[in-house]
Amino acid sequence: MSPPATTAPYRHALRVYWEDTDAGGVVFYANYLKFFERARTEWLRHLGVGQQALRESTGAMFVVTETKLRYRAPARLDDLLQVTVELRHRGSATLTIVQQAWRDDTLLAEGEIRIGCVDDGTFRPRRIPTEVTSTLA
Amino acid sequence: MSPPATTAPYRHALRVYWEDTDAGGVVFYANYLKFFERARTEWLRHLGVGQQALRESTGAMFVVTETKLRYRAPARLDDLLQVTVELRHRGSATLTIVQQAWRDDTLLAEGEIRIGCVDDGTFRPRRIPTEVTSTLA
Amino acid sequence: MSPPATTAPYRHALRVYWEDTDAGGVVFYANYLKFFERARTEWLRHLGVGQQALRESTGAMFVVTETKLRYRAPARLDDLLQVTVELRHRGSATLTIVQQAWRDDTLLAEGEIRIGCVDDGTFRPRRIPTEVTSTLA
Amino acid sequence: MSPPATTAPYRHALRVYWEDTDAGGVVFYANYLKFFERARTEWLRHLGVGQQALRESTGAMFVVTETKLRYRAPARLDDLLQVTVELRHRGSATLTIVQQAWRDDTLLAEGEIRIGCVDDGTFRPRRIPTEVTSTLA
Repeated sequence: MSPPATTAPYRHALRVYWEDTDAGGVVFYANYLKFFERARTEWLRHLGVGQQALRESTGAMFVVTETKLRYRAPARLDDLLQVTVELRHRGSATLTIVQQAWRDDTLLAEGEIRIGCVDDGTFRPRRIPTEVTSTLA
Repeated sequence: MSPPATTAPYRHALRVYWEDTDAGGVVFYANYLKFFERARTEWLRHLGVGQQALRESTGAMFVVTETKLRYRAPARLDDLLQVTVELRHRGSATLTIVQQAWRDDTLLAEGEIRIGCVDDGTFRPRRIPTEVTSTLA
Repeated sequence: MSPPATTAPYRHALRVYWEDTDAGGVVFYANYLKFFERARTEWLRHLGVGQQALRESTGAMFVVTETKLRYRAPARLDDLLQVTVELRHRGSATLTIVQQAWRDDTLLAEGEIRIGCVDDGTFRPRRIPTEVTSTLA
Repeated sequence: MSPPATTAPYRHALRVYWEDTDAGGVVFYANYLKFFERARTEWLRHLGVGQQALRESTGAMFVVTETKLRYRAPARLDDLLQVTVELRHRGSATLTIVQQAWRDDTLLAEGEIRIGCVDDGTFRPRRIPTEVTSTLA
C-alpha cells in the first residue's frame, strides 16, 4: 500500500518534533488535527488564498465544524510525514476535505474534516467568498 | 437544552486558559480532544484506575484509535466547561466512549472516542486488564 | 526542602495528562509556561480579576514580555503538581512574578515571569487598570 | 535592524498556523520555545545528528535545563519566521545556545537555552557523545 499517485492530492511535508510526541513515545493523536490543518493552510496558500488576508479583506473566516479521524500506526520523533489534502465536497458555505498522513508507504492517520465559512466575530455562517470558490473549481 | 441529568454521566470541570484559545478568539477545536482526554483520565481515576500505575504493573496502555467530533458553539477565555464521559461499549480490547463539552446549558462540542488497549512499547493489541474491566461492569 | 509555608504564596493544583508529556516520558519543558500561566490566571481570578472581563471593560490585556525558567526535576503522567504565584514587583505598567512547580516536596521548575499591560489590538503599553492594582496592594 | 548576516548563524524557516496563535490574535508566547526547539533539531540534523538515532545508539538524550526568553514584537497567523541557532558555549555535558525569531527585519523573540545531556530513562547527567561534540568543533 502506498500513497495514491495518479489522483495526486496536494501534499505537505512535515517533521515530527519533541513537542508533537507524548509519553507513549509516539505522536500524540490530537496533534494529527494540527498536522492536517497545516496541510490545509498550505493547500489554500498554494491556491492563492491566505487566511489572514482573506479575513482582513472580506471578514470571512473558516472554522472546523466536524472531524473524523482514524489513527492507524504510530509516528515517532524525527519521522518525516507527508500529509495529503483532497477536496471531497464543496457547498456554498462548507467544504469537506479528506486527509491522510503517511510516513513512506505507511498510512499513519486519515480522516475527514468539515469546514464552515463564518463571519469574523459573530461566527454566523456565510457563503464562501468567490476569491476562494473560484480557485476550487 | 441542558446536560442530561437522569443518566448522570461522569463530569469533569475545567477552565479555558490562554493556551486553549486561537486567533479566532475562541477555543482551538483540536483542544477539545485534550479536554475530552482529561475527563476520561479523571473518570478512570475516579474508578480507581491510574494509567501510569496500570502501565507499570501490567504493561498495558490505552491508545486512541478513532475520534469523531462535532464542534457546535465557540468557547472563550475564562469559560468554565463541564466535560462528560459515558461508556457506550466495552469490548475485550476496546472501549467506545461518548463525550460532550458544555458551558452552562450550551453544548459546545460532542463526539465519540474509540480506545484500544495495547502493549507498552510494541503497540500490539491486547485484552484490557481485569483490574480495569472489573470497574466498568 | 519543601514548599515555603510561612510566606504562603498563592497555589494552584493541576494534574499531568498525556497532552503534557513528551517522548522522554516526562512533562515537556515548554508546558511549564502553560502551568505557570494557569496559576497566574487563577491567582488573578482569586483576587477578583477576570482577564476576559477586564479586556471587555477596559481594553487592557496582559502580555508576557519575559520568561526565565529553570527545569530541575522531571514530572510524569498522573503527577499532581502545586504551582505557586508570588508577586515580586509591581510597576505602573508591568508586573514581575516568581513561580515554582512542586510535586510533594520536590521542586520541579521555577522561574520569573514579566508581564506588561497593553492595549488590546494595538499592543501599546499602558498603565495597569486600577481595578487590578487595587487588588495587588 | 536586521538579522546578522556576516556571522551567519544557522536558520530555520517556519510558518505561523492557527495552532500557534491565541485569543490575543498573535502567537502564544510559550510557542516560541517550540519554534526554538524545531530550529535546534534541524540545526543538529544539519550537523548530521538525529536525536532519535542518537538515543537508540548511545542512550543519550538532550534535555532543556534553562530557558530565558524576551518577547519583543507579536507575530500573526500566516507570518513566515526565521529562527536562528548559535552555539554560545559547549561544556562536556551542557550546551548553551542563543536563538532569535525574526519576521523580515523585525526581531520577535530572543533568548538563551541551556541543554544538558542525560541518560535516557534515569535522566542522570552524562558527557555529550563524541559523535555530537565532533560536529560542534
